[in-house]
Amino acid sequence: MKQKITIKTIAKELGVSTSTVSKALKDSHEISKDTKEKIQAYANLYNYKPNHLALQLRNQKTKVIGVILPKIVHHFFSTVISGIEDGANKKGYNIMVCFSNESYKKEVETLKVLSNGSVDGIIVSVAGETLENKDFNHFKGLVSEEIPFVLFDRVVDEILCDKVVVDDVGAGYKATNHLLENGRKNIALITTPNHVNVGALRRQGYEKALIEHYIKTDRDIIVEIDEKKPLKPQIAKVFEKEIDGVFAVNEIYAANAMRIAKERGYTVPKDISIIGFTDGLISEYSSPSITTIAQHGFTMGQQAVDLLIQRIENETADFKPKKIVISSDLKLRESTKTL
Amino acid sequence: MKQKITIKTIAKELGVSTSTVSKALKDSHEISKDTKEKIQAYANLYNYKPNHLALQLRNQKTKVIGVILPKIVHHFFSTVISGIEDGANKKGYNIMVCFSNESYKKEVETLKVLSNGSVDGIIVSVAGETLENKDFNHFKGLVSEEIPFVLFDRVVDEILCDKVVVDDVGAGYKATNHLLENGRKNIALITTPNHVNVGALRRQGYEKALIEHYIKTDRDIIVEIDEKKPLKPQIAKVFEKEIDGVFAVNEIYAANAMRIAKERGYTVPKDISIIGFTDGLISEYSSPSITTIAQHGFTMGQQAVDLLIQRIENETADFKPKKIVISSDLKLRESTKTL
Repeated sequence: MKQKITIKTIAKELGVSTSTVSKALKDSHEISKDTKEKIQAYANLYNYKPNHLALQLRNQKTKVIGVILPKIVHHFFSTVISGIEDGANKKGYNIMVCFSNESYKKEVETLKVLSNGSVDGIIVSVAGETLENKDFNHFKGLVSEEIPFVLFDRVVDEILCDKVVVDDVGAGYKATNHLLENGRKNIALITTPNHVNVGALRRQGYEKALIEHYIKTDRDIIVEIDEKKPLKPQIAKVFEKEIDGVFAVNEIYAANAMRIAKERGYTVPKDISIIGFTDGLISEYSSPSITTIAQHGFTMGQQAVDLLIQRIENETADFKPKKIVISSDLKLRESTKTL
Repeated sequence: MKQKITIKTIAKELGVSTSTVSKALKDSHEISKDTKEKIQAYANLYNYKPNHLALQLRNQKTKVIGVILPKIVHHFFSTVISGIEDGANKKGYNIMVCFSNESYKKEVETLKVLSNGSVDGIIVSVAGETLENKDFNHFKGLVSEEIPFVLFDRVVDEILCDKVVVDDVGAGYKATNHLLENGRKNIALITTPNHVNVGALRRQGYEKALIEHYIKTDRDIIVEIDEKKPLKPQIAKVFEKEIDGVFAVNEIYAANAMRIAKERGYTVPKDISIIGFTDGLISEYSSPSITTIAQHGFTMGQQAVDLLIQRIENETADFKPKKIVISSDLKLRESTKTL
């Protein structure tokens, strides 16, 4: 596809501001006849097609930020929303949250709805299906239309935009290392399919910790959960081998692993230590309570919205995408207590 | 305030459709000169002021539904969103969710953002502060602008609109009665302040059940939680008296009551039976698992969005607000098991 010429390019080439270009193209009386003619001629020459939606987006500030999340019922995303809300409110913005339900089609549709001028910018965590398909044209469209947007948590390297991520490799390493240092040797991993990149990265951290302790990865005690099938039988599979530790990449997997361990007569943490991910209420209210890797969703949300608002409010600045990496902490609870 | 004349009134008075009125007022070529003159004269006579936002809302379908919720992190509201999503998707609508954070000001602002033409209709559960202040002019504005909207769960009787509610008195009665029939006599109630009407209604059900069993209400074992203060010491207060049952109006209160009971050496359910509200994951994964009143949030969401879409798509129909009452079920688990 031929590179589309944008208002920004015209402004740069002719040494004027983007707002001058925008006004000139709308034949505004605020701009001198000479400048208008020059800009309009240049735009014609390079076949500039105004993107009306993007224009509207740039010119009519709505003071609203759109957010697209892959899931509705998920504690981590709730805390991210709280962080986005908090950061947005401090700067006088409201937020609108939409859900892709992990569907590519829904994500494309929702992006269209939000970028029709109802919001000043968009924050997205990418849908599972999109990551699987590797079709990111809808995001590339945002980039070329110069619509401010930020990806968080589930990000895609090849999209040039601001990003906020958790240090997932580090988190997986921290969790596994904690179990190893407590003397655990046969540590099961309950993770997502490989195309969900955060799961893949946490697995790298898990494998790194094992290697450092000279332990060979055992494929039989690693399970990639298919969310379309019942959870429990899939998790139960790792209990067919002798295990003394479980690292689960979210708290629902961890809580289910604990249930199965109890049902099979194990005592947690005496016989098996369990560690989850996302510091939600289930981990806190489980009995025993579950040690987790706290993802700092609130901080992530705040950072994402801060980046976005900077982008919205400094439009003429040079575009150099930023990436913020948030490190995660171990939240020690009963399920990994050393006895 | 003088009653504002609307397109609907003009249509009714002149025996034409609302779309004819709307087109005539915009001087559309689709309408005959005679009809246009008649309608425009009538509008002038009664000083009709077109509400451009409302007009835009009516004329430009966005196929988007706005939702305003009082809280972000709350399992019940998550299930309601799922239900709204499901119902909306089936009819080709997308949803956008905003949060009032229990604040009156935020609710008014958000309502303004959504009713500026970005959505075809709005679903709201009223903020705590609004219920406390009893200032409902922002909702009355929606009614007079004929913007389709539905209230759910936390509704206000005096606003003339469609409503979806849970049978809260019945639910409180069911929960308390279940404890009484298991031989419990000193049943604590952990509820919200009285201005949150759902809490007040559940309390009515609690008191009704006690009366039927000839038990006098004991003010010392009823606590109205102030969400701005730490939860645990407030709940602990009811344990200063001899109690053998707890009815909590949400699952966080119930889970905390169970913790306090355990810390004080009680065994649940042998010594104390506990029953919560909202069938969330905490109740399911607690140990022992907690009996709850399932609110059917998913069904509520579906019903709310069905009512709204009917209203959006049949604009000329006579307006008679509907109220749907959803009954709730007891979900028996370990915390009230009879031994």
